[in-house]
Amino acid sequence: MKDVASQIRQGNRLALSCLLTWIENENPEGRAALDELFALTGRAFIIGITGPSGSGKSTLVNRLAIQLTGSPQTPQSVAVLAIDPSSPFSGGAILGDRVRMRDLMEHPEIFVRSAATRGALGGLARAASEMVLALEAGGFDFVLVETVGAGQSEVDIACLAHTTLVVEAPGLGDDIQAAKAGILEIADILVVNKADKNGADTAARSLAAMLEIGADAAGLNREEQVTWKVPVLKTSALNDEGIDELVAAIRQHRTYLETSGEWQRRSQIRLDDLFERLLREKLFAEWKRNIQNRKYEQILGEIHTRKISPYQALKQFRA
Amino acid sequence: MKDVASQIRQGNRLALSCLLTWIENENPEGRAALDELFALTGRAFIIGITGPSGSGKSTLVNRLAIQLTGSPQTPQSVAVLAIDPSSPFSGGAILGDRVRMRDLMEHPEIFVRSAATRGALGGLARAASEMVLALEAGGFDFVLVETVGAGQSEVDIACLAHTTLVVEAPGLGDDIQAAKAGILEIADILVVNKADKNGADTAARSLAAMLEIGADAAGLNREEQVTWKVPVLKTSALNDEGIDELVAAIRQHRTYLETSGEWQRRSQIRLDDLFERLLREKLFAEWKRNIQNRKYEQILGEIHTRKISPYQALKQFRA
Repeated sequence: MKDVASQIRQGNRLALSCLLTWIENENPEGRAALDELFALTGRAFIIGITGPSGSGKSTLVNRLAIQLTGSPQTPQSVAVLAIDPSSPFSGGAILGDRVRMRDLMEHPEIFVRSAATRGALGGLARAASEMVLALEAGGFDFVLVETVGAGQSEVDIACLAHTTLVVEAPGLGDDIQAAKAGILEIADILVVNKADKNGADTAARSLAAMLEIGADAAGLNREEQVTWKVPVLKTSALNDEGIDELVAAIRQHRTYLETSGEWQRRSQIRLDDLFERLLREKLFAEWKRNIQNRKYEQILGEIHTRKISPYQALKQFRA
Repeated sequence: MKDVASQIRQGNRLALSCLLTWIENENPEGRAALDELFALTGRAFIIGITGPSGSGKSTLVNRLAIQLTGSPQTPQSVAVLAIDPSSPFSGGAILGDRVRMRDLMEHPEIFVRSAATRGALGGLARAASEMVLALEAGGFDFVLVETVGAGQSEVDIACLAHTTLVVEAPGLGDDIQAAKAGILEIADILVVNKADKNGADTAARSLAAMLEIGADAAGLNREEQVTWKVPVLKTSALNDEGIDELVAAIRQHRTYLETSGEWQRRSQIRLDDLFERLLREKLFAEWKRNIQNRKYEQILGEIHTRKISPYQALKQFRA
């Protein structure tokens, strides 16, 4: 595909899909295109949605995407990037895409894409960061980044977003499980989805209580506090309930971000983080190019046999 | 605490706890001690246990730990390292420890430790890798590494283990959720826990079917295949059911690992991975020490204002 960057500039979605694939496959053409498109980035409102599987997150994201497009006369455009821990091996990402596409078929202003886990160290977080850049360059008003689970990668990916939603649902586990989920600290808005189910009120109350404890532990004085107070909202995505209120809270959070200077700070952190990742990668790649393979293998062999420790081995290499 | 390394060698668990804390806090004394202790590592059987929250994983790990200690006359020692996505902020890790300690109080040969998520890039995976080294040096026969969730960090952490158990439970989500979980590929043994609940048989059958699809997709020819066939086992940890069979499967997998050369290969990959992480870190730290802070900040500023792209900025720095 020739001149992908200029075609993306003209709103060509096929070209955008192609660029996203390049990024996913770490094809160098992807970086060349992103380099060209970089000046177009920085305008989208990036919303992260994370939470455990079984919380009905995907349905919620679909509803949210539709709601964010606004009036049919002057629709806003929405991109959904679903970060999927499936590997290409199981084909999970593709399957997920198909199910979503069916739901969103009547909404051409919504663009959906899944990205699968990369094996490389930190590979997924970097790829996600670059895919968001590509979607911003594609001119979307909103970019929704959905992640499954509650691990380190989700925390990394939350750093991409202006606003992070953490989605829970009743019946996924006891209180301690919820406390262990530990991603509460990254939440700007907490959502208890499947609110039609038993236990939704209890879950919402217990999350609100945990937020209080967290705020106390962080030494925040709520009287003086001019910062954001994380709301706990109940939704039932399947029945399309609570989505209006959720969108209202998201818009309030955007206003908070813009008036507090936090919008700019988060936008910058995201770029700093990407740059540091790229730099670390480059340093290692250049170092590897300059080192003799045989020497490296020999040292690894000495570690395997416990002749030297990894820490001693480090001293044998100069940067 | 003086001379932690020699105290660990003598089986002092307080010294071991101290070293684990050093590693978690990235205290340089931790590396010095690991350097001293490295020759003692490489003898433990490392078992990874992962799966979504709500699968009853912690209870299963407790039962498994007790079962692995074997006969009360000549008990084997077991260390449990629970990798917890909570930050120190929420105190989730400590809470989890307390609950577990209560269950395992009568089993002094079992040592339990939780590790919380680190903010640093890839920090948790490296800390986990070093904590396993410390536990090996502590002389445990078995090291169980438990992780919550289904993200990249879990895949990274599975690479630590000789044998990886993936735990599911009925009722945590529909088939597509299970397929999306996508960690099936890292499983050496699949466990459907909470087997007393409705839907356990269906879950087990559907997981077995997914494994078949996965094996087909990978082009494995089952007739010629001399590799490991992933078993799907049902357990009810709460009722102590199926644990014997699980331990038998784990022992079978160990025999497979040892006869196929896979034991050695996995042991080496783990060290190679740790060494590469340490090396990448060192390269970046040395580079940062040599660069002018002002120059770095200036370049970041130019990225923020979109004057240059991160890719152009990279060219301004030499390794």
